[in-house]
Amino acid sequence: MRRDREKMGSFTLPGEAGYEELTLRMAEKWGADVIRDSDGTALSKEILDAGYGIYSTICLIREHNKWAREHRNMLQQTFLMSTPCLARTEAIRIPLLENYFTEQFEINDSEESLAYWQVFDRTAGKEVDKGNWNYDCVGGNVEVEGCIPYHEYTVNFLAYRIWEEISMYNHVTNHWKKEHLMPVDPRMPEAQEYLCRWLEKWCQDHPATTVVRLTSMFYNFVWIWGDDERNRNRYTDWGSYDFTVSPKALEDFKKEYGYSLTAEDFIHQGKFHVTHMPPVKKQLDYMDFTNRFVVGFGKKLVDLIHKYGKKAYVFYDDSWVGIEPYGRRFREFGFDGLIKCVFSGYEARLCAGVDVEIHELRLHPYLFPVGLGGKPTFMKGGSPVRDAAGYWMRIRRALLREPVERIGLGGYLHLVEGYPDFCSYIEKVAEEFRVIKAFHQKSEVYTFPCRVGVLHSWGSLRPWTLSGHFHETYMHDLIHVNEALAGLPVDVRFIGFDDIKTGTLKGLDVVINAGRAGTAWSGGKIWEDEEVVSGITRWVDEGGAFIGIGEPSAAEGYHNYFRMANVLGVDEDTGAKVCHGRWRYNVEEIPGLIPEGAVFKGKENLMLTDGKARVLAEKNGTPVLAVNCFGKGKGVYLSDFTLSNANTRLLLNLLLFAKNMDLTQKYLTDNSETECAYYPEEGQLAAINNSDSPQGVRIQTDYGLQSFSLKPYETQIRKLK
Amino acid sequence: MRRDREKMGSFTLPGEAGYEELTLRMAEKWGADVIRDSDGTALSKEILDAGYGIYSTICLIREHNKWAREHRNMLQQTFLMSTPCLARTEAIRIPLLENYFTEQFEINDSEESLAYWQVFDRTAGKEVDKGNWNYDCVGGNVEVEGCIPYHEYTVNFLAYRIWEEISMYNHVTNHWKKEHLMPVDPRMPEAQEYLCRWLEKWCQDHPATTVVRLTSMFYNFVWIWGDDERNRNRYTDWGSYDFTVSPKALEDFKKEYGYSLTAEDFIHQGKFHVTHMPPVKKQLDYMDFTNRFVVGFGKKLVDLIHKYGKKAYVFYDDSWVGIEPYGRRFREFGFDGLIKCVFSGYEARLCAGVDVEIHELRLHPYLFPVGLGGKPTFMKGGSPVRDAAGYWMRIRRALLREPVERIGLGGYLHLVEGYPDFCSYIEKVAEEFRVIKAFHQKSEVYTFPCRVGVLHSWGSLRPWTLSGHFHETYMHDLIHVNEALAGLPVDVRFIGFDDIKTGTLKGLDVVINAGRAGTAWSGGKIWEDEEVVSGITRWVDEGGAFIGIGEPSAAEGYHNYFRMANVLGVDEDTGAKVCHGRWRYNVEEIPGLIPEGAVFKGKENLMLTDGKARVLAEKNGTPVLAVNCFGKGKGVYLSDFTLSNANTRLLLNLLLFAKNMDLTQKYLTDNSETECAYYPEEGQLAAINNSDSPQGVRIQTDYGLQSFSLKPYETQIRKLK
Repeated sequence: MRRDREKMGSFTLPGEAGYEELTLRMAEKWGADVIRDSDGTALSKEILDAGYGIYSTICLIREHNKWAREHRNMLQQTFLMSTPCLARTEAIRIPLLENYFTEQFEINDSEESLAYWQVFDRTAGKEVDKGNWNYDCVGGNVEVEGCIPYHEYTVNFLAYRIWEEISMYNHVTNHWKKEHLMPVDPRMPEAQEYLCRWLEKWCQDHPATTVVRLTSMFYNFVWIWGDDERNRNRYTDWGSYDFTVSPKALEDFKKEYGYSLTAEDFIHQGKFHVTHMPPVKKQLDYMDFTNRFVVGFGKKLVDLIHKYGKKAYVFYDDSWVGIEPYGRRFREFGFDGLIKCVFSGYEARLCAGVDVEIHELRLHPYLFPVGLGGKPTFMKGGSPVRDAAGYWMRIRRALLREPVERIGLGGYLHLVEGYPDFCSYIEKVAEEFRVIKAFHQKSEVYTFPCRVGVLHSWGSLRPWTLSGHFHETYMHDLIHVNEALAGLPVDVRFIGFDDIKTGTLKGLDVVINAGRAGTAWSGGKIWEDEEVVSGITRWVDEGGAFIGIGEPSAAEGYHNYFRMANVLGVDEDTGAKVCHGRWRYNVEEIPGLIPEGAVFKGKENLMLTDGKARVLAEKNGTPVLAVNCFGKGKGVYLSDFTLSNANTRLLLNLLLFAKNMDLTQKYLTDNSETECAYYPEEGQLAAINNSDSPQGVRIQTDYGLQSFSLKPYETQIRKLK
Repeated sequence: MRRDREKMGSFTLPGEAGYEELTLRMAEKWGADVIRDSDGTALSKEILDAGYGIYSTICLIREHNKWAREHRNMLQQTFLMSTPCLARTEAIRIPLLENYFTEQFEINDSEESLAYWQVFDRTAGKEVDKGNWNYDCVGGNVEVEGCIPYHEYTVNFLAYRIWEEISMYNHVTNHWKKEHLMPVDPRMPEAQEYLCRWLEKWCQDHPATTVVRLTSMFYNFVWIWGDDERNRNRYTDWGSYDFTVSPKALEDFKKEYGYSLTAEDFIHQGKFHVTHMPPVKKQLDYMDFTNRFVVGFGKKLVDLIHKYGKKAYVFYDDSWVGIEPYGRRFREFGFDGLIKCVFSGYEARLCAGVDVEIHELRLHPYLFPVGLGGKPTFMKGGSPVRDAAGYWMRIRRALLREPVERIGLGGYLHLVEGYPDFCSYIEKVAEEFRVIKAFHQKSEVYTFPCRVGVLHSWGSLRPWTLSGHFHETYMHDLIHVNEALAGLPVDVRFIGFDDIKTGTLKGLDVVINAGRAGTAWSGGKIWEDEEVVSGITRWVDEGGAFIGIGEPSAAEGYHNYFRMANVLGVDEDTGAKVCHGRWRYNVEEIPGLIPEGAVFKGKENLMLTDGKARVLAEKNGTPVLAVNCFGKGKGVYLSDFTLSNANTRLLLNLLLFAKNMDLTQKYLTDNSETECAYYPEEGQLAAINNSDSPQGVRIQTDYGLQSFSLKPYETQIRKLK
């Protein structure tokens, strides 16, 4: 017996062959309208015929081992840097793959590859003349002559990736014993032909599939493994393009852009170009070049899927590199939907904001024995309900602000069998989701007239995320800020530094710049651009508000370290001003601004610039929160920002304060542990408890004061008119 | 009745006119052999005739107000930078002295001065064309035209200093109402002539004086005051040469060095060139130039003093700038003695190491109502005995290692009247001092065969001190290290980076480099010099040990941030390696190495380089102490170092460990709160308690195990043979 329409739909369930009864039972319980397979699994006929929509998962570039073995030169590649080798004598031998996971890499010592290799004296920071080294292909070593004793040398070389990384991760984590899948590089025309043929046949072979769910396109985020279990993940960056490279790509790049890239343009002294650092011109060119290719060939494949009457959804993780869902070419793919795996609210916003018809969230926890962090989930010691409630608490508040169309789960369905409370909790989540979704369909959510621009190097191309999940990027204050913003009742957008020169500030009330000096989040050398500095200064002077967190606008070489120091009233001493006097101050209070429980970690070496900023909080004798009137506008400085309910409310209060708005507002709860969202056309007020304890809350509305008693994590909906 | 010889001498007492009986009584009690006057006081005939040696204090460049008023253009000067002024329009007016203490400064708007003035667009980092600004001498403003809106502008200008700073400080602190003393600049030949005449007359007028004690030569350390009591000390640097400048000096410099200095060479974006940052070439040239002048004219004055049969001692503080007691010209002055005001052990070593006949320490507390930190001393709430014991505890351990000839007090003697326990304590200190001094005269103190070189930008020119007293430089780990080293039984020297290329390392067992990145103490850009890097690397590889603290050897732009990262096994991630894996480690123990009570503050963003370093302590999941075998030598990394008895012993243990010596040694106490010194020729063993609680201690010696029970701060001496 199917449920009524309101209680079903918008839910994707991972089916599992061998558990047909369970699959259909849970589909009914959770109100699923779609059943999906998972990577490496297939659905049985019984499920396919049950009348549900069917998602089939395809990872295009793997599962072609037979062809790959016959075309090893068409495997995907990457540049690697050998471990630094100290020269004690003038001649040294550098083993290239030492310390790398040799199940992942194989040296590409073809002639085209060798042309890109480079040897560097890293102590002197100079490339070694090609005449001074040669490759010993038997031992996999580079031999260097004429070394300067006690300098360190490295080799930049190309390696094939012989084990597709997601498959490798799942193998190693779940102790799989299957054949290692190899990633094929569609940059090669022969590979493209093969993949088109293969996909066409696949579509023909899967008539029941209504949606092809691509995981994802071609290139995984970079994930370089080491051979030592004490440091398996040598380099991991969700947003980096290292795994797209090949001699063919470099050759194509040269033709299109008129200049050559070197191995060092990727290796960058062994640092690579992490997403957390400001991108450089060559990197942006190469990203654009790769994106053009991925969109071009991707569109071909999507067209092919459409030809068979199926929809094409893309997974916004794993092999997502080159897709750039916020890039200017994304619409050209023709995708029908985008699926994002989410732990956090900002990821829900990241998904929701993409210009595509269907947005789907794959909720956590996955139906796996262990979670991504390695902690137990569906096994002894795990508590999947607690995990699910924690994640849903974060995502729910984001969904109250901006809708998506679908949610779903992933993993092995049979694992839920021993967890009936989990099954019931997911049922409740699915129902809450449908209610929230319905609100958005009928009404815009009420938003305070406060337009916030988060300013960083990636701007609108990479909103909300930094590079990966929260637990991978927690060390950056900005992800805490983004996660807080994801559920706040304000208008949020992400802007880059170029936007400052094109009038974008005019449409904003507050700009936030948050990050460690030199990073993409603070901005790094872009702050040397005086137009950026004077542009924001003028905008604040005319009434805008600039909130700086950590080392905002920091750049070396000027009279101030924070280029916005005059606006903030706060600067950081890098050491050159250690003999400069520090302004004494009294900590002032702005009633209601700092919620109980708000905390700061504090930061050393901060100083007031001219003593005029009002210090609102300090730690260890140093300001951690200061506000500064600047012309008609304001500067606000926070030493750091760590996500918590109290700090989230602090951020909202600062936004209101910066905009000269009252700290008490209609449709704002009086308890930081809770939030609310109001849908005026429907008159629906949703109150949520973001804590694991009961909370009482009052909300002033146009229909009088509303009081709620909320259970831990509870959502309550009240119709006001 | 005079005491026996052993119990007197080597002590300078500040006499006070009007308190003749007290003066002579305390002289007797403390065993003084010399009575001195203080700045601004004079001794009476009764004291002068009592048979003591007489020190008379002269501050050469002040106390000439009549002459100074007639020669205002011969007052000392300094470059100042006006407060940054934001241009909201194209024309702005910059008030030069705004925010400065106008009792200290007067604009020098002479033609010679104006030639050096500069206006800067600090937002763009560019000088403004001289045609775009002019000086309004009536208002004391500079008017700038053609400004770029929302850029900040500043003026570099020259100001006379119309109130000698030490006199100003004493006036303001002690609410003096006397006439403001003006500092005369002996750079002017007319001033030189005047000062010579004046000094000659002074010598004639003071036949009782046996020692002329100069406070000090001509130029005070820089001390720029602001008009706001919330930030009175705008810029204070004990080691900086800003107060020596004048158009005449700059003209002479150009003649001697063949190039011109600009105002910006001093102002440096308003940062000035603090001693805590690596000196630049022009700064070193200018220091050398000034030192040559100070020594040249100083020698004339010393010769004059000698001509009158008096000795000349110089005070190593206040107007010490240009003297450089560790400089190559210091002997040329012909000084007979050097007096250093000391709070700490490192200052005792700083004094003791100067190449001069007599070294005298002026102990703390001064006989003033309040101490330098503003806390009560000889007044309600003060405890001068507690203060004296704390200071003596630090100085005593330094004096056990290296002797000085004399100690003394300063201030107003009458203040001790209400403090008989203080008078008794000083009597004891004086006796202890004489005993220690006598040991050194008969025997070298026993020192472990461990030769330590502290490596920083100032090297042997500026050993022991950073720039001023401990409480002024506590934020630098190195002063904590230096203070610990001041009493450790090892051979300590200070080396600069040039020394690495001249074989200095050969004579060392351990090199310490400790400091924040970019500072003079870490070294800054000098670490870009590959010879420095490879030189130390080779030396460690061949058996040396490199101890890095904080951000040792840090330089941007290379594969590692710490240039000695391979030696240390530890590096810091500046942000570019945030996606690089971190080595997991277990915290290992080296028995006895870390004393109970040793603590670290900890540091973020540290990472192991190759996973081979042994982590001995961690904080917040990050290593704080690691040791790394490197070739035949060792690298040792500490995240930070804060002075305490336990950390001092930790440092000693690390030195022994680095040198491959046993952690248990003869003539080493088994209790970190205590230390000892052994004088083998005399067979004298001194055990000291560096804590305020009783301590039991055992010391292994060539004459069996020695046990002591030490009262708080106590010294015990035992003759072993």
